[in-house]
Amino acid sequence: MTNNTESRENTVLIGKKPNMAYVMAVVTQFGAGQNEIHIKARGRAISKCVDVAEIVKNKFFKDAKVKSITIATEQVETEKGEKFGVSTMNITLTK
Amino acid sequence: MTNNTESRENTVLIGKKPNMAYVMAVVTQFGAGQNEIHIKARGRAISKCVDVAEIVKNKFFKDAKVKSITIATEQVETEKGEKFGVSTMNITLTK
Repeated sequence: MTNNTESRENTVLIGKKPNMAYVMAVVTQFGAGQNEIHIKARGRAISKCVDVAEIVKNKFFKDAKVKSITIATEQVETEKGEKFGVSTMNITLTK
Repeated sequence: MTNNTESRENTVLIGKKPNMAYVMAVVTQFGAGQNEIHIKARGRAISKCVDVAEIVKNKFFKDAKVKSITIATEQVETEKGEKFGVSTMNITLTK
């Protein structure tokens, strides 16, 4: 991820849509020739990040493997200047 | 985890309590001499599982390391006999 464009191409960022929207995004990218996809989430979306990786692996690309799972904390600042940490997750899937 | 008693001793299962209840459970077990603790969660509790690991690492045991993170799907059957998959997570922390 030294390059933003490159990173966007094989990254799926988990948000508020239903699981299947992100599953389809991953499946589409695998179908388009990507061999490695990063599924990323922050905070409450982390559970969905795991769901998406598991659904892709179990239902769509049975040969896909979890290459790595990393967790971290990102510092976020509110408008009032209060700082707090938000957990982040990055699941790398390869096919 | 060949032995249930052994597994219970160094395992913290994430449920509906506030984050800090589980952080304290991990901190207590590290304090009691455990060198490796498994933090486990299913479904929506997975986000909290990551929060707990990150808080222990960042605020209590700065030398603690994430040894491994694994995800899987567990098959659950409802009373009506419907089967569905639930994502699970296991974070192993070592100090």
